[in-house]
Amino acid sequence: MGNTNVHLSLPAVCIVWQTAMIILFGVFMRYDHESDAHWVEHRKHSNLTDIENDFYFRYPSFQDVHVMIFVGFGFLMTFLKRYSFGGVGFNFLIAAFGLQWALLMQGWFHWLDADGKIRIGIENLINADFCVAGCLIAYGALLGKVSPVQLMVLTLFGITLFAVEEFIIISVIHARDAGGSMVIHTFGGYYGLSVSWMLYRPNLHQSSRLQGSVYHSDVFAMIGTLFLWMFWPSFNSAICDHGDGQHRAAINTYLCLASTVLTTVAISSLFQKHGKLDMVHIQNSTLAGGVAAGTAAEFMLMPYGCLIVGFCCGIISTLGYIFLTPFMEKHLKIQDTCGIHNLHAMPGVVGGIVGAITAASASIEVYGHEGLVNTFDFMDKFKDMVPTTQGGHQAAGLCVALCFGIGGGIIVGAILRLPIWGDPADDNCFDDETYWEVRDKS
Amino acid sequence: MGNTNVHLSLPAVCIVWQTAMIILFGVFMRYDHESDAHWVEHRKHSNLTDIENDFYFRYPSFQDVHVMIFVGFGFLMTFLKRYSFGGVGFNFLIAAFGLQWALLMQGWFHWLDADGKIRIGIENLINADFCVAGCLIAYGALLGKVSPVQLMVLTLFGITLFAVEEFIIISVIHARDAGGSMVIHTFGGYYGLSVSWMLYRPNLHQSSRLQGSVYHSDVFAMIGTLFLWMFWPSFNSAICDHGDGQHRAAINTYLCLASTVLTTVAISSLFQKHGKLDMVHIQNSTLAGGVAAGTAAEFMLMPYGCLIVGFCCGIISTLGYIFLTPFMEKHLKIQDTCGIHNLHAMPGVVGGIVGAITAASASIEVYGHEGLVNTFDFMDKFKDMVPTTQGGHQAAGLCVALCFGIGGGIIVGAILRLPIWGDPADDNCFDDETYWEVRDKS
Amino acid sequence: MGNTNVHLSLPAVCIVWQTAMIILFGVFMRYDHESDAHWVEHRKHSNLTDIENDFYFRYPSFQDVHVMIFVGFGFLMTFLKRYSFGGVGFNFLIAAFGLQWALLMQGWFHWLDADGKIRIGIENLINADFCVAGCLIAYGALLGKVSPVQLMVLTLFGITLFAVEEFIIISVIHARDAGGSMVIHTFGGYYGLSVSWMLYRPNLHQSSRLQGSVYHSDVFAMIGTLFLWMFWPSFNSAICDHGDGQHRAAINTYLCLASTVLTTVAISSLFQKHGKLDMVHIQNSTLAGGVAAGTAAEFMLMPYGCLIVGFCCGIISTLGYIFLTPFMEKHLKIQDTCGIHNLHAMPGVVGGIVGAITAASASIEVYGHEGLVNTFDFMDKFKDMVPTTQGGHQAAGLCVALCFGIGGGIIVGAILRLPIWGDPADDNCFDDETYWEVRDKS
Repeated sequence: MGNTNVHLSLPAVCIVWQTAMIILFGVFMRYDHESDAHWVEHRKHSNLTDIENDFYFRYPSFQDVHVMIFVGFGFLMTFLKRYSFGGVGFNFLIAAFGLQWALLMQGWFHWLDADGKIRIGIENLINADFCVAGCLIAYGALLGKVSPVQLMVLTLFGITLFAVEEFIIISVIHARDAGGSMVIHTFGGYYGLSVSWMLYRPNLHQSSRLQGSVYHSDVFAMIGTLFLWMFWPSFNSAICDHGDGQHRAAINTYLCLASTVLTTVAISSLFQKHGKLDMVHIQNSTLAGGVAAGTAAEFMLMPYGCLIVGFCCGIISTLGYIFLTPFMEKHLKIQDTCGIHNLHAMPGVVGGIVGAITAASASIEVYGHEGLVNTFDFMDKFKDMVPTTQGGHQAAGLCVALCFGIGGGIIVGAILRLPIWGDPADDNCFDDETYWEVRDKS
Repeated sequence: MGNTNVHLSLPAVCIVWQTAMIILFGVFMRYDHESDAHWVEHRKHSNLTDIENDFYFRYPSFQDVHVMIFVGFGFLMTFLKRYSFGGVGFNFLIAAFGLQWALLMQGWFHWLDADGKIRIGIENLINADFCVAGCLIAYGALLGKVSPVQLMVLTLFGITLFAVEEFIIISVIHARDAGGSMVIHTFGGYYGLSVSWMLYRPNLHQSSRLQGSVYHSDVFAMIGTLFLWMFWPSFNSAICDHGDGQHRAAINTYLCLASTVLTTVAISSLFQKHGKLDMVHIQNSTLAGGVAAGTAAEFMLMPYGCLIVGFCCGIISTLGYIFLTPFMEKHLKIQDTCGIHNLHAMPGVVGGIVGAITAASASIEVYGHEGLVNTFDFMDKFKDMVPTTQGGHQAAGLCVALCFGIGGGIIVGAILRLPIWGDPADDNCFDDETYWEVRDKS
Repeated sequence: MGNTNVHLSLPAVCIVWQTAMIILFGVFMRYDHESDAHWVEHRKHSNLTDIENDFYFRYPSFQDVHVMIFVGFGFLMTFLKRYSFGGVGFNFLIAAFGLQWALLMQGWFHWLDADGKIRIGIENLINADFCVAGCLIAYGALLGKVSPVQLMVLTLFGITLFAVEEFIIISVIHARDAGGSMVIHTFGGYYGLSVSWMLYRPNLHQSSRLQGSVYHSDVFAMIGTLFLWMFWPSFNSAICDHGDGQHRAAINTYLCLASTVLTTVAISSLFQKHGKLDMVHIQNSTLAGGVAAGTAAEFMLMPYGCLIVGFCCGIISTLGYIFLTPFMEKHLKIQDTCGIHNLHAMPGVVGGIVGAITAASASIEVYGHEGLVNTFDFMDKFKDMVPTTQGGHQAAGLCVALCFGIGGGIIVGAILRLPIWGDPADDNCFDDETYWEVRDKS
């Protein structure tokens, strides 16, 4: 630590990886039949209208998800007084890098054609953004303490682990996870926390002068918060079934999130002197309901069920910021800059459990016969599955996400401890001047 | 006044109300047939394709409206130098709280099924956001002068009044008001102004040091302005008829708003020394055209008609900021922090009048027979109505909105004068330190 | 220069022009058949469903483009320490002004009906926003050095030139340019640079104290960057063919942009001391891939082809900022405040060339017969055209864009040199206090 010169390593990693992407895309990547110029012929044969192209079902949601990834996550991480460039800038870098690798990894696992080509369309773009989200969550735990080269390594392995984990949970175990409570948030949260544990800095207090926010940086962070909060219904509904699936997922998430805001405010006010609110809670805990609504978004969670989930998550997440984050830093040696344990990891686990319970209690009365088959995909080799078994599979999926997050984080953390990555010394963490040209010194 | 401790009252109100919401949602709230899992069966019976689910007609507009409510209104209120947390934060709180209550209130009035259940879909979410907008407008007049508990009371009653007023105007009187010039802006504007009149503070000058903007807070406010301005076409078209109705409403609003910008700049420059522009006008008056286009958005207002409406509103609104706001504070004892009289109340009335005139002059030549029936909903018990009568009904609707706004505001204002709500003393208004943990003191 | 009083000229220009717009709209502008109230009858005759209204194909993309124009371009220009009001505010003014004139100019050239009326729908709104983009690009070169009156003149002529140039390139030459690499970016870039060359200020160093950014203004600019970056796929796909055309354009642009980020970071880091990143590059060069993907967006560029285009543009654009901008200022007397040569002009030319090559190498194997006809619009009087000829036409289009940009810029620049426009003296350039009421002096 200490030598933060990334003069050769950062350009080298960027150029080498981008070149590798070009080659791999050349070998594997093709348009799917809805984005290929042959579609006009296909459409006529299948007697479809133009508007039935998947693009029109999913593009508005995709753009909302895209905003969450780049503006939402990016600006949420601008809250530190002198690390806003690193927050929004490195978020931009690793997201742009990660989504290319995600297209390939997810393509190989899920979208490989008989001729060995990956066929991509709008759904792949959404999935790539989802995959990247896992790594951005992990970045939240490490914000200000790692170099951009470390972040690229973190992302490279993170995407790889994600794709394997997702394949096991969704395709092998046949768990449903439309909004990724397990696949994205549980995995990403524990991945980041484990890496942070491996990279524990006992002397981090040396840069404590930079570890807080200033007035305007807190307002910038609210841009991130609000775009995440507003577009979360799109996140959870983006890859749901056409029709009622997307419709219901959006409603469920909207309700969950509304309820979370109220309990976050309540707990924040209750535990401060004079009942004052803390911006950290408003910026983060208000989002916990969206995380927890992920797995069950497409299910018949019912409007009141959504409010209950949001109610609990606002409380859990805010209490996490007040009690758990300081405890983890002091006793577990886990330094979690953005508090991702409270925003993603715990609510993700809650979401997985809610999903398992909701799936296990599904019935033909509530869903209708076709609705049940449709919602839980009881088709092909899973056509004899029943809701109670599905509940068990959901629980199994949650365990897989936890194992991959913790195990993967420990391994990747070990790699990132090598003294070759240009990470900052303890006394210049949280400081943009380490990796950015800053024109007005603080 | 003076005891700003909301240590118990704020958490108590949040928890109690959220619990009440859960119970009421449990009793009343269900998915409608397009968001229910049974839809797949319904769809086949009705010979519909997936894309004809109402979700795909309205979800992109809904998300735009959602951005207006949370980022638009929220950031527009960050312009004060030390009240940005309160501007964006309390906006967030009362919107999240209000939309749940709005779903219930509007549900009881408009969407109650034979079995006593409210069936919600994407249109309800849009309407709930609309309903909340009325209260956020009212907040604009009170910004910096009230406690969060007062805001929740304001919102609770505001939503209730809104739902009754809307039911009378839309369902009983059969006025059309797609973008809510009357229902939302006239009502919300006069509601807020009346409350502000009841809460008049003769010694508000004691916190005059905090009553202005600083350079960066004005830039933050422009985020709010622009998202409101850009997405207003979605606001006015969101619940219009499928097809040409939504299409025309978006075009009309777009043109109105473009024209408003030019006259706002003209008047702002004309009345300042050296022709300099005032950020207050650019932030607010440029939006007046969107307000005024609300009622007539769906009508055949014609492109030039839109430009004329926008032209007038830019002038009226900017002159309001220059002359009327100081006059109202001095002589009418109405303190209007954001100038909602110029941005919402007056343009709302203009919009109501434009709507009445446009409706009264509608003809079969311009609309076509089916188009006329469709646009004005001359069906069922209103099937014998003619455009001239419709014009009268529109005018009646405007009067109802005014009465509810002023009357409701006086009553709610009286309630908010009780000395139990923890509102700030005159010398710590407009100061975030009253209700927020602020890390860097000003 | 020196008399910056726009007390009469700015209001006069605004009012006169807006009045002229009202008259011209009254004479020429009508709704098209999809936004007219008669559509309900038309729809039944044509056996269409409501969702097949063009509104639903294009409105989400339109709103994304709208955000790019107002928030994207506007906030990208807030990076200067004391010219954020002028950046976002004048951008707002000239965009709102320009889009009205664009609707008319483009209407006369492309959408005139037999009865002499222009029929507008959602596609016209998108095209008007596109047209305005050309002028906003030009503003980037002049940022901080011109008066609002000059900007309105610049826009008036810019829109006029744009409409003629576009008509020649698209309709006469039959070049394809869905995302406007040539029509928008090459034209707008060279137009602005030529005007800037004509308005060269040898003593601009007198306001060099204001020519940089501060920490927070750089964060504001990132809002612009990210909204441009995220929504560029919508920009390039907004007016593509329904179905696979829009779908493919979005994918192509998404991939181009991802690749650009990596090479921008690489080059930025490589040429700074200690490998530090420069915010100027991250804010601007990361967007070059979107510009270059414009012409070929709809073509079968293939995923790896997109990555290659983005790879090159990130390098070219960043090197442009490092070497070319200082060279142009010193030796060519072109002062380019935002570096539009690197962000728009050069990548636009690259995009034109990529488009010509991709078109020339198109084949029936890759596109299918119908796909080829569809993508390149080989219909009517162009039905005998073949890809190789199309490639030549594309190249011809690029030349036209260059000529119009440079030629038009020189003429308009000559007009703007007249000493009547109230432009700032050399020592108060880049200063908002010239044209804005600023409450806290710097």
